Amino acid sequence: MVDDTDRTGLAVIGAGYWGPNLVRNAQATPGLRLEYLCDLDVGRARSVLGGYSTVRATGSLDEVLADPAVGAVAVATPAATHLKVALTALEAGKHVLVEKPLAANLAEGRRLVEAAEDRGLVLMLDHTYCYTPAVKHLRELVRDGGIGDVQYLDSVRINLGLVQRDVDVLWDLAPHDLSVFAAILPDDLVPVEVAAHGSDPIGAGRACVAHLTVRLSNGAMAHIHVNWLSPTKIRTMVVGGSAKTVVWDDLNPTQRLSVYDRGVVTTQREQTIVSYRLGDMVAPALVEQEALRGVMAEFAASIAEGRRPLTDGRSGLRVLAILEAATESLAAGGRFVAVPAEVKEYA
Amino acid sequence: MVDDTDRTGLAVIGAGYWGPNLVRNAQATPGLRLEYLCDLDVGRARSVLGGYSTVRATGSLDEVLADPAVGAVAVATPAATHLKVALTALEAGKHVLVEKPLAANLAEGRRLVEAAEDRGLVLMLDHTYCYTPAVKHLRELVRDGGIGDVQYLDSVRINLGLVQRDVDVLWDLAPHDLSVFAAILPDDLVPVEVAAHGSDPIGAGRACVAHLTVRLSNGAMAHIHVNWLSPTKIRTMVVGGSAKTVVWDDLNPTQRLSVYDRGVVTTQREQTIVSYRLGDMVAPALVEQEALRGVMAEFAASIAEGRRPLTDGRSGLRVLAILEAATESLAAGGRFVAVPAEVKEYA
Amino acid sequence: MVDDTDRTGLAVIGAGYWGPNLVRNAQATPGLRLEYLCDLDVGRARSVLGGYSTVRATGSLDEVLADPAVGAVAVATPAATHLKVALTALEAGKHVLVEKPLAANLAEGRRLVEAAEDRGLVLMLDHTYCYTPAVKHLRELVRDGGIGDVQYLDSVRINLGLVQRDVDVLWDLAPHDLSVFAAILPDDLVPVEVAAHGSDPIGAGRACVAHLTVRLSNGAMAHIHVNWLSPTKIRTMVVGGSAKTVVWDDLNPTQRLSVYDRGVVTTQREQTIVSYRLGDMVAPALVEQEALRGVMAEFAASIAEGRRPLTDGRSGLRVLAILEAATESLAAGGRFVAVPAEVKEYA
Amino acid sequence: MVDDTDRTGLAVIGAGYWGPNLVRNAQATPGLRLEYLCDLDVGRARSVLGGYSTVRATGSLDEVLADPAVGAVAVATPAATHLKVALTALEAGKHVLVEKPLAANLAEGRRLVEAAEDRGLVLMLDHTYCYTPAVKHLRELVRDGGIGDVQYLDSVRINLGLVQRDVDVLWDLAPHDLSVFAAILPDDLVPVEVAAHGSDPIGAGRACVAHLTVRLSNGAMAHIHVNWLSPTKIRTMVVGGSAKTVVWDDLNPTQRLSVYDRGVVTTQREQTIVSYRLGDMVAPALVEQEALRGVMAEFAASIAEGRRPLTDGRSGLRVLAILEAATESLAAGGRFVAVPAEVKEYA
Repeated sequence: MVDDTDRTGLAVIGAGYWGPNLVRNAQATPGLRLEYLCDLDVGRARSVLGGYSTVRATGSLDEVLADPAVGAVAVATPAATHLKVALTALEAGKHVLVEKPLAANLAEGRRLVEAAEDRGLVLMLDHTYCYTPAVKHLRELVRDGGIGDVQYLDSVRINLGLVQRDVDVLWDLAPHDLSVFAAILPDDLVPVEVAAHGSDPIGAGRACVAHLTVRLSNGAMAHIHVNWLSPTKIRTMVVGGSAKTVVWDDLNPTQRLSVYDRGVVTTQREQTIVSYRLGDMVAPALVEQEALRGVMAEFAASIAEGRRPLTDGRSGLRVLAILEAATESLAAGGRFVAVPAEVKEYA
Repeated sequence: MVDDTDRTGLAVIGAGYWGPNLVRNAQATPGLRLEYLCDLDVGRARSVLGGYSTVRATGSLDEVLADPAVGAVAVATPAATHLKVALTALEAGKHVLVEKPLAANLAEGRRLVEAAEDRGLVLMLDHTYCYTPAVKHLRELVRDGGIGDVQYLDSVRINLGLVQRDVDVLWDLAPHDLSVFAAILPDDLVPVEVAAHGSDPIGAGRACVAHLTVRLSNGAMAHIHVNWLSPTKIRTMVVGGSAKTVVWDDLNPTQRLSVYDRGVVTTQREQTIVSYRLGDMVAPALVEQEALRGVMAEFAASIAEGRRPLTDGRSGLRVLAILEAATESLAAGGRFVAVPAEVKEYA
Repeated sequence: MVDDTDRTGLAVIGAGYWGPNLVRNAQATPGLRLEYLCDLDVGRARSVLGGYSTVRATGSLDEVLADPAVGAVAVATPAATHLKVALTALEAGKHVLVEKPLAANLAEGRRLVEAAEDRGLVLMLDHTYCYTPAVKHLRELVRDGGIGDVQYLDSVRINLGLVQRDVDVLWDLAPHDLSVFAAILPDDLVPVEVAAHGSDPIGAGRACVAHLTVRLSNGAMAHIHVNWLSPTKIRTMVVGGSAKTVVWDDLNPTQRLSVYDRGVVTTQREQTIVSYRLGDMVAPALVEQEALRGVMAEFAASIAEGRRPLTDGRSGLRVLAILEAATESLAAGGRFVAVPAEVKEYA
Repeated sequence: MVDDTDRTGLAVIGAGYWGPNLVRNAQATPGLRLEYLCDLDVGRARSVLGGYSTVRATGSLDEVLADPAVGAVAVATPAATHLKVALTALEAGKHVLVEKPLAANLAEGRRLVEAAEDRGLVLMLDHTYCYTPAVKHLRELVRDGGIGDVQYLDSVRINLGLVQRDVDVLWDLAPHDLSVFAAILPDDLVPVEVAAHGSDPIGAGRACVAHLTVRLSNGAMAHIHVNWLSPTKIRTMVVGGSAKTVVWDDLNPTQRLSVYDRGVVTTQREQTIVSYRLGDMVAPALVEQEALRGVMAEFAASIAEGRRPLTDGRSGLRVLAILEAATESLAAGGRFVAVPAEVKEYA
């Protein structure tokens, strides 16, 4: 049994769609001690906790932040409120885990990162997919050079999804893909410019289908297709390399990763000669684990060890920088828009 | 047995990759009588015919065109030669079936269409997929209104493919998708503008991965993803409608079409209310048939009946018009380029 | 909020593999009030409940049964202990939910059924699959005659599974298939005789791979393949009917049921003429729901309403009767062994 | 170009379902020179050859066998006629390729084998699957010990298939599975006894659904499930080994073989300890090739080299011996029936 004094007291803020998952996983994390579930609608918080819990429900964020037993908060409120909730928490000296996206825009995100860094507090994004066994393995394959040079990336995330009221499909879904790109790509391979096309065929008032093209610093093209209107569900990412190509199919629990020793080989003599390599495919054995469990463990560990978590605030800024450029491109009819050069520092 | 006098004498021009398929299917088509296989390399033509054939091999196009027993030719030579070969054939009074694309550019394509129309000859494209049972069924569903208003189209055609020497991946693969769009969409739903992004990560000298966005006249977005470098093979098209959505998976022989009675429903009151409809999925029974058999049958029938074939020269112009705009967009960094208004007449 | 007085107090007995699932689902069931988790190893029970629960952990079954707040128990202990635990509970006047199989053998199972029926108590089996939306739908299709006459059944349940110490693969896995057969087949279609083949290629001391053939009262053959050693996981059941055939693939969350309007048609004239019908396939829309939630709801409802649950003790006897005959067949080299005629009464 | 004098003149006997495939592949085989297609219905033979062939159609087997240009025949007539046709051909000094099964029963099969061996002629079965790249690779994995000891085999071959008039589903389909077993298993691992269960739910007069259990000489169980009535098509074989397990899915062209480094590990100390090994899965790169092309090449080569082909007459006897035992088991209510000990000599 972990001694209570070694555990960080945690409050979960927001009892909506995502909050119950945070509650469940926080309770299963040895380094955390869940103290509160806080929601403006305290009845909702009570309902989420159910009739068998010793965790306190509250409607008052002030009460939570004033409690010295609370060392950290996990924020699962709407993105528009992240600045206010997270900043207040940081100013109260609490470590903060924020649901993606970090904030409603890049400027607000920067304020949060600065506030955390000024105080030496952990600010972490729950970029959940980065903590799956599949992405961890993919990260090793890509960063350790096993796949050779990155030639292209292609991510499809489509489903009959909840049409959001406040954000378009890019802001809703693409953070997943962008955060994985950030996690797996080498530090010196960064997004340079972005073009986005979207459409709203149902009159929802915002893009429901969108295509995002990201030009990387080595010239490679990364493409993301997000769609709220698809009757079929696809969550597939392809990372094409000069040596190997990896396909990540998140909906295939028995074979999430497929590593193909296959590709096009070019030989430069007088002219380019193209040939093909048809090798085996290997599906590495991966031990299944709930991703949010890994998020919670990393949050607890980074607090305990006083270090930056894998998906720290800066990784959130990287995502925001690209999303802002994408929104600008959408408004400008799809032309390429530069990503701020500062993203290099967000690796 | 069909009387020989009822059958159109045919010569296949070009004994390369596609020629043998034309030879095989022409021989199985009751309305045609295969007379020649013609290739500059007559040895290659002989080799394709094999040691058991009564069909003549020849290296001389002139010989073929001078033979009154030849009423029609099927051209399977490189696209750059289509103008010369097909025009000569039309001028010799022969009906012409051309492998896609119709010609190397829109201007050359127009000359062929004019030449055919001036002489009352059939000029047909072998847009093979349009003759599959799946696309025929899809055409009915989309044009007869069964799927409601077309909201989006999404086509993926990726594979470890032959990197072409003369054309990029868009010109090589996208004609398949574009010709199917042309075949299934209602006549008044036409492409308006096009944006293309491409990349050449292997130094082939032309785009090997590309994304094409086509804005349709009703505002809907059609997207095509083509890729020569993918280790996995995908050939899927989604046609999203206000009532139903159809997924065509050409690599699933037992279930090529899936019709989903599923989607997002919007109700306009004071504000838009979005809800969901989760109905059954129906996979219609389709009788398998080789598509090229249908191409040949349509070619023979349109000659015999003196009518325009389903995929006549104008459908080839429609594809060329979009490809040219796509090439212009690629060169212009991905901005939208208008498709010539004349495509409306190519329906 | 449900008034506590309307809720049945429940104790879960056994904190092993299955217990935690019972705990979680009991807490989410409005008609139940979870009072205890009981395990001989009380530390294990405490660990399952975790640090945030108001539910009591105990090592004493006597304490549980003596508590008047407990009206029902859910037994998740090894099969060999079911007779003792469940009988004691019934004798203490508690309703009982038992993990499958009902008991270690048919005779013990009969004693439990008699004990429950004598006292007017609910005795229910957690034949989980019977409460999935897929099986409920399948039950309607089969019993309401939508598929016509049942012609054959085929069930495959293979996986790299836990080799049990006390029972062979038939007793471990086939209860799932047999209980579904019992749930979906019309009451007058019952098993008549059984043949079983098994092998133990790893020297485990009991069959690890087995095939079970069940001859039904209408002459149709039902086959079950169970295997602990398969590297791939398959859970598929086919129910072939004279009008339609249904495939249930439990591992395909987006399409668990496929109803084929396809089959062989025989016409009797002078001789049998066989022809084929190739109709559409329909995948009915099913709302996903955790099966164990349905089990708990049915347990609570049958107690509240004083009625037999869908999977009552008699359905457990039906499974035991077939398993005993299968064991006898295994020992007799695979010959057919009659199922006791009393199974007709277990419908 | 191969000199005609090096090529064996071939006649195909039978222009029914399978004949056209033999004609096409014979024409593409360098070591063969197709002379005749022979069918009692000479019009049918002409129709199969089509209007462009130099191959002769004939209705007279005598004419074919009297022609010294014919050195070999390929027999694709109904099984009941194999004895007569093949024996006549052997007696005329021709090498013979027979469509499976070798003959209508074991006794007739033996006569053919003896006739061929007495005259030093090649007698070969077209056990097509044995010539696929997948089975060749599988053969190496199993025979070279890569998968360790063979622990179980499981083959499923189900489809909405042609209900045969003369044979039941076992005789129609199981030869495929049995011939593959024969090809891949080590020579000293032979079938010992067989049990078969079948049913005829459509009143066809013979089993349409059947399960065949084959006990091997090392105690392992091989199981075959064949079914003419299944709306879905499955052709999967699993070969479970102590080191690795291979799954062959013949309907997955991009991944026919999957080799799992996964399984159950038993350690013998005081008692058996069972543990699990979860390693990677490897899908070996296989070059697609039409199997019948390989059959023809082997037939030509074995004639030219005067050697036994891979699937010689004895492999046909092995299949017949098992099928006869299966028929006896079916008639005897499913009890195990011994396979004649002579099958050891058929390896």
